[in-house]
Amino acid sequence: MNEWSPPQPKLDLQAALTASLRDVSAYQGQGSLPSYIPALSQVSPNKLGAAIALGDGGAFVAGDGDEPFSIQSISNVFTLSLALQHLGAALFNRVGKEASGSATNSIVQLELEKGKPRNPLINSGALVVDDQLIGGDSGDVAIDELLQFLRERSGEEGIAIDEKVAISESQAGSLNRSLAHYIAAFGNLSHPVEEVVSVYFRQCAIAMTCRQLARAALYLAFDGIDPITGDQVILPNRCRRILALMMTCGHYDNSGDFAFRIGLPGKSGVGGGILVVVPNVGAAAVWSPGLNASGTSLAGTMLLEKLVERTGWSVFG
Amino acid sequence: MNEWSPPQPKLDLQAALTASLRDVSAYQGQGSLPSYIPALSQVSPNKLGAAIALGDGGAFVAGDGDEPFSIQSISNVFTLSLALQHLGAALFNRVGKEASGSATNSIVQLELEKGKPRNPLINSGALVVDDQLIGGDSGDVAIDELLQFLRERSGEEGIAIDEKVAISESQAGSLNRSLAHYIAAFGNLSHPVEEVVSVYFRQCAIAMTCRQLARAALYLAFDGIDPITGDQVILPNRCRRILALMMTCGHYDNSGDFAFRIGLPGKSGVGGGILVVVPNVGAAAVWSPGLNASGTSLAGTMLLEKLVERTGWSVFG
Amino acid sequence: MNEWSPPQPKLDLQAALTASLRDVSAYQGQGSLPSYIPALSQVSPNKLGAAIALGDGGAFVAGDGDEPFSIQSISNVFTLSLALQHLGAALFNRVGKEASGSATNSIVQLELEKGKPRNPLINSGALVVDDQLIGGDSGDVAIDELLQFLRERSGEEGIAIDEKVAISESQAGSLNRSLAHYIAAFGNLSHPVEEVVSVYFRQCAIAMTCRQLARAALYLAFDGIDPITGDQVILPNRCRRILALMMTCGHYDNSGDFAFRIGLPGKSGVGGGILVVVPNVGAAAVWSPGLNASGTSLAGTMLLEKLVERTGWSVFG
Amino acid sequence: MNEWSPPQPKLDLQAALTASLRDVSAYQGQGSLPSYIPALSQVSPNKLGAAIALGDGGAFVAGDGDEPFSIQSISNVFTLSLALQHLGAALFNRVGKEASGSATNSIVQLELEKGKPRNPLINSGALVVDDQLIGGDSGDVAIDELLQFLRERSGEEGIAIDEKVAISESQAGSLNRSLAHYIAAFGNLSHPVEEVVSVYFRQCAIAMTCRQLARAALYLAFDGIDPITGDQVILPNRCRRILALMMTCGHYDNSGDFAFRIGLPGKSGVGGGILVVVPNVGAAAVWSPGLNASGTSLAGTMLLEKLVERTGWSVFG
Repeated sequence: MNEWSPPQPKLDLQAALTASLRDVSAYQGQGSLPSYIPALSQVSPNKLGAAIALGDGGAFVAGDGDEPFSIQSISNVFTLSLALQHLGAALFNRVGKEASGSATNSIVQLELEKGKPRNPLINSGALVVDDQLIGGDSGDVAIDELLQFLRERSGEEGIAIDEKVAISESQAGSLNRSLAHYIAAFGNLSHPVEEVVSVYFRQCAIAMTCRQLARAALYLAFDGIDPITGDQVILPNRCRRILALMMTCGHYDNSGDFAFRIGLPGKSGVGGGILVVVPNVGAAAVWSPGLNASGTSLAGTMLLEKLVERTGWSVFG
Repeated sequence: MNEWSPPQPKLDLQAALTASLRDVSAYQGQGSLPSYIPALSQVSPNKLGAAIALGDGGAFVAGDGDEPFSIQSISNVFTLSLALQHLGAALFNRVGKEASGSATNSIVQLELEKGKPRNPLINSGALVVDDQLIGGDSGDVAIDELLQFLRERSGEEGIAIDEKVAISESQAGSLNRSLAHYIAAFGNLSHPVEEVVSVYFRQCAIAMTCRQLARAALYLAFDGIDPITGDQVILPNRCRRILALMMTCGHYDNSGDFAFRIGLPGKSGVGGGILVVVPNVGAAAVWSPGLNASGTSLAGTMLLEKLVERTGWSVFG
Repeated sequence: MNEWSPPQPKLDLQAALTASLRDVSAYQGQGSLPSYIPALSQVSPNKLGAAIALGDGGAFVAGDGDEPFSIQSISNVFTLSLALQHLGAALFNRVGKEASGSATNSIVQLELEKGKPRNPLINSGALVVDDQLIGGDSGDVAIDELLQFLRERSGEEGIAIDEKVAISESQAGSLNRSLAHYIAAFGNLSHPVEEVVSVYFRQCAIAMTCRQLARAALYLAFDGIDPITGDQVILPNRCRRILALMMTCGHYDNSGDFAFRIGLPGKSGVGGGILVVVPNVGAAAVWSPGLNASGTSLAGTMLLEKLVERTGWSVFG
Repeated sequence: MNEWSPPQPKLDLQAALTASLRDVSAYQGQGSLPSYIPALSQVSPNKLGAAIALGDGGAFVAGDGDEPFSIQSISNVFTLSLALQHLGAALFNRVGKEASGSATNSIVQLELEKGKPRNPLINSGALVVDDQLIGGDSGDVAIDELLQFLRERSGEEGIAIDEKVAISESQAGSLNRSLAHYIAAFGNLSHPVEEVVSVYFRQCAIAMTCRQLARAALYLAFDGIDPITGDQVILPNRCRRILALMMTCGHYDNSGDFAFRIGLPGKSGVGGGILVVVPNVGAAAVWSPGLNASGTSLAGTMLLEKLVERTGWSVFG
């Protein structure tokens, strides 16, 4: 019926990735590191890596794309997947679906909305997701479930928490503790604050490479089915909803700008990583530690912009 | 490369549209009419219409899809297209790209951001777009340009302003005047407030049918090219950006929920209309006057949800 | 019963006033002029004047205390007195009594409180007071009533509007128009916006000297009775309430700091004037055009601080 | 110089107090108890007491004025006195002096002002005061200093913490913990959150009678000198500043209304107590557990209003 034209079949993705990385190399080292987490601020700002994973198993890597980095709140996408598996739509009784219109750690909106975070991808929402993920178990069980999930999805048994980063997160965790206590004050937290934030600090401290991250996210590009293993990871309907949330709320207070420039559902982390999903095609991950004013990787965003120009992967045509 | 499966080639769109309309008929008359615009509150709440326009010229209509209604702020999509044609990216020096995180007519964000509206699809942003559209001409010229554009894009010479609605808008226009004066206080308005709001009141009062609206928006589905006439209406890059803004900011304070449920770039109007764009496929418009708490058509949203379930048109897979 | 010790009977007020003015002369010219009102920004920043009026008719003047200046929102105290005379406590159905916690021209609070200004001494509240003062008459009648009131209370027939300033206010009046339209949107304005703001622009443009201002305010120090003429200007109960509002809300976003440093009910204007009332004693006015970051006269505040140290006039002991 | 007329010398204060209490007896039991602190919600809502302490040692008590109740945040006045003794004006580097324009436990303002509470009498500000009061010691030392201070000032050795209430406060303390972590996130807290909040929970749980409270606050009415013992408790200048803060910020989001109706510096607690200071005369305390919508004792405020009408004690004449 419609005259859909597929992506150029002859497109050389390795070349496209390498060229896009080269395009932005002048921006390596620009932007700022998150000084409030000492362990993150010690990473070399000159790192620059990228990787693509396709549904047919194809993988393309450039620059430092095989070096592990702290995935930070990119992990929210995976805890959200797990919590949706457990709870379904009931999850959204306790967390909204709208962009916050403010910084990821803003507490203002939380006051106006009486302890119900605006969406599951900002800090406050991720804490409510973690609280639900813990469920009848402990925080340790929840974090193990997450690690196991990431190992299975990426096929890499070595994925682990960087304990030094986790400790640093906890020591610098005043704002997240404040958010959690605030949510608790409105009765929207079932477990003790320290148990919930300790899950959050550890999930943020998970170290993965761009290659691993792109591979792990493939299920999000194929209606919830891991195209390599054939596992139905989450239901199709829920998969689309996670992508919608990534598109509208995945990058703090510059989610709109990201959609505007890249046109793909994605999630940024203050470790400098960005994950994007290309529906029906695959996933990509980039890493460059320097952040823009909103906390998203500066060179990483530019690299993705170049890549999307070359591949035509924007969902907007 | 990727194993993309196209939409069902045999899908009977007329049947899908009719069935989707029937699915939600129980919700006809539910929701509330916008009491602050008397002319709108007199419309029969039981109206329910829908239409689809495809790139090959195919058109499908159901219910009241051939009855004109007030397009209201759906018009913002077209003034944005025109202003981008005139000004390009410079437009975004004076208006942002982020979801507002609050109601369409909120003035709070405007104070925090010193008179620069969050995005061009909320009231305040649309006023700044209109100000730029007027440019060196008058408000009358700007509104004529818009009418001419809509007539060309829809192929219907009869498209006109409902003067009774325009007068009603102006009489009830305190909030929009407040926003415009506020923007002017920060030096972000080039023309007198009354000239700018008079363009806005008139563009909101344009009457169109679902069939006309879907047809007029086809250029947005095909990288800025009207697939029927072949006209390059706007550049591809700008077209994608309009769609990104529609996805993240098109439905007031329930833009996230709309993306979550429908998965298509769209724009709602308080007249009960909703326009959605299906990249590389076409456009659809629905109309049902009863609004949900955020000002989006209640039955209209449900109808689109059913239609997307049947067609698999979500950009998220 | 209580061992009240009266202010030093031998206190030489002229000497105290002159010395206080001399104390702060180093600060003459510091601070900033309100650039958004051109006519005000042309005043010499080196002006510095002060005056005291006592209940027994005593008057003390120093520096430029006999030179007229633009009283700006100090006028809100007088329109509030007149509106309370007309309407009594019903006035407070449409305007609150709490400090706003933000700048005088903030519109945020107005959104949260649905068009009901926080108090009658900030811009938005003064507009609602003006609207009530107009009542069944016109804006011209209201402004005449105010002028007549000030002439009677000061015994100076020459008090008048500085038309050049009034025009400048109106030309720069976007923010006040925005506030007025916003209030109107919530149905909290009975007259057209232009009629209400034109009263406000003119009351702000009234020119008075420190001597006249202190004299005119004497009724506020004596339970509503003008101690010179014996006129009951307002009821005692209402007089105390005006003073309470001046104490808690009289100086924009530094009302608390003013109470902290001066300890007297007062009202600042962006023309650089400050009026304070000393219950059971008299009133004082100062003028120095340079403003602090919150819009209150910088040297004027310091002068009052020095004067209160010398006189022991703080209501807090 | 000025013709000051002293309060009626023959005024029978006992009669005035008893009559004022009788006037409001119809309102006993009205208002609501603070359900979020279980121990407070179990107090009988019908309690109604009042007491006056004069500089000459005179004391007047009515109703339940000799029954201990939880003073809650009235204690902020005393910790502020102690911290000012220790630190002087440096205290205000870390806490402001302005009314918050919102509820006592609002976190919004804290975000806008980057962790610096608006004033020392709201929850967030009291936490910063406690942090400074702890100084180089421990929280236990700080709370002992406060208890010792209250025992000395009231001459009652039995004043103590109600441990049941303290535990209840801590268990219900999510919001205060959130505020403290938030302040800590901006580097404005020197001690661990749990140490600071444990001081706050205990100071709020101190039980005192109206008689004790009025007596303890006498130093605030006499320029910092306890008129019974002659002790210079705090410097005169600091005393006046505490009274200014009580006038502008002493009653959450109804501080303006309280100044408007009562005209005296005061402080409310959610235990239903209110303390007011009459400069150069004495102090009064009332207690009635039912609270108005802003958290101030409903019948207590009315009782004070009646008392001030009879005594003419308003600082505004």
